[in-house]
Amino acid sequence: MNLSDPPVNPPPAMRHVPMERRDAAGAQAAQDWVAMEVPVALEFNGISHAVMLASPADLEDFAYGFSLTEEIVDSAADIRDVEVVPGEQGITVRLEIASSCFARLKERRRSLAGRTGCGLCGTESLPDAVRTPPPLNSQASFSQAAVLQALQSLRSRQPLHDATGATHAAAFADTGGGLLIVREDVGRHNALDKLIGAMQRARHDANAGFIVVTSRASYEMAGKAARAGAPLLAAVSGVTGLAIDVAQQAGLCLIGFARGDNLNIYTHAERVRKGEPHGQ
Amino acid sequence: MNLSDPPVNPPPAMRHVPMERRDAAGAQAAQDWVAMEVPVALEFNGISHAVMLASPADLEDFAYGFSLTEEIVDSAADIRDVEVVPGEQGITVRLEIASSCFARLKERRRSLAGRTGCGLCGTESLPDAVRTPPPLNSQASFSQAAVLQALQSLRSRQPLHDATGATHAAAFADTGGGLLIVREDVGRHNALDKLIGAMQRARHDANAGFIVVTSRASYEMAGKAARAGAPLLAAVSGVTGLAIDVAQQAGLCLIGFARGDNLNIYTHAERVRKGEPHGQ
Repeated sequence: MNLSDPPVNPPPAMRHVPMERRDAAGAQAAQDWVAMEVPVALEFNGISHAVMLASPADLEDFAYGFSLTEEIVDSAADIRDVEVVPGEQGITVRLEIASSCFARLKERRRSLAGRTGCGLCGTESLPDAVRTPPPLNSQASFSQAAVLQALQSLRSRQPLHDATGATHAAAFADTGGGLLIVREDVGRHNALDKLIGAMQRARHDANAGFIVVTSRASYEMAGKAARAGAPLLAAVSGVTGLAIDVAQQAGLCLIGFARGDNLNIYTHAERVRKGEPHGQ
Repeated sequence: MNLSDPPVNPPPAMRHVPMERRDAAGAQAAQDWVAMEVPVALEFNGISHAVMLASPADLEDFAYGFSLTEEIVDSAADIRDVEVVPGEQGITVRLEIASSCFARLKERRRSLAGRTGCGLCGTESLPDAVRTPPPLNSQASFSQAAVLQALQSLRSRQPLHDATGATHAAAFADTGGGLLIVREDVGRHNALDKLIGAMQRARHDANAGFIVVTSRASYEMAGKAARAGAPLLAAVSGVTGLAIDVAQQAGLCLIGFARGDNLNIYTHAERVRKGEPHGQ
């Protein structure tokens, strides 16, 4: 971005680069912190599965969250081991998963044999394109004040974004709107996967809180939040039509344009209680 | 978003939904326009290749741009026919491409047999992850004023974003900063692919102008712009480290945080001439 002084403790996943700054005052050589974007290969039981571009931080969390939201494992307990191995061309994350999950993954891969896949994680035909998460069996609701509080707190909890201006954040909040976990990434899906992985690893009950994100909420974001068991997803920016459809069916309360005092609630508004003080 | 009155001529690719608006004044039932997000399957010579989630507009442009920037074809002339076929589960775009390109695509798919692919268009191993576009052989440069002019003009040329707040835009500008083509999409990569496809179809010389985008500039955005032959990519938001690396090697001038009078020029600053009036 344009920090005259670099951060005292630069977070990982950023690097210092030269640049030329032009503005009304003229041109100056300058230095800048930019977000790193690194190929991250995910291996399951020794078999390479996918490469994602991601911020090189919290990759164990990413591995847990991706495995869960892509339905490769059913819970964190199915993951036996995660090893992060930096290399010259990128970072390899090696997962050991339960043999039943690995057998299912191999079967899924066999049925995709000969396909290249693109865009939707290996999907190449329309009938497979839109997956609906199972409906959430939950009566959870939260006070409007808690949702607003969580969104406000998130602004000051994004060191990578503050320094680089090029990343998204996802956070898990408790019923009072306090942020329990925050994760950042150059990709909004990755930030959400990292958050969900961290929630699993810390054994947080997803149903006991809600998720806020600094980005838009698309189909994939709504699907990931619902698959993680979260009853509510609030996005600072807009939502898409397909995200609304998925959230409606899954029992997920989907909120967009959550800014200042404003919340646009597109689905399951019964999960947001009006006019109660924090934490009620 | 929060339009009290819907747009007089709603652009395609949006839909009207009910929502509940909460703010300091209380709760009200309201209506909103949201961006549609639709599975779009791309078929080449009868073979299904990939499904992307995209805004259902300008899909012929998308087909041309995707084919070019994914290096399935070498130029628009390799595309014989494009047909957009709406269906119940999404939209199929059927392309007929030159037999030499189709043979190459089949070969590429054969070498990927048994892989599922994810994230990076079928890539599952690190050596394939980062592709560097061929270096641009161009002396093109543009006045700083023209770049600022194009960015300012772009703000008023985004009907889908104005109504929904959930889409990105990409535009091609001439040497004076005038916008020749603008495309919007829920995905920033798709918006850029649509723009590049439209440029090809209108036979614009990519080297005779530059590209501006409302989003961040990641590795994939820089790669697509370079592969299209554009000498300059200016992004309203931040750039990533890998985007800088790709742009540096490709000869692409990469600009971030292009806002107001400010331009952060990360690579090939020689392509932006200082202090000249528009169009010089």
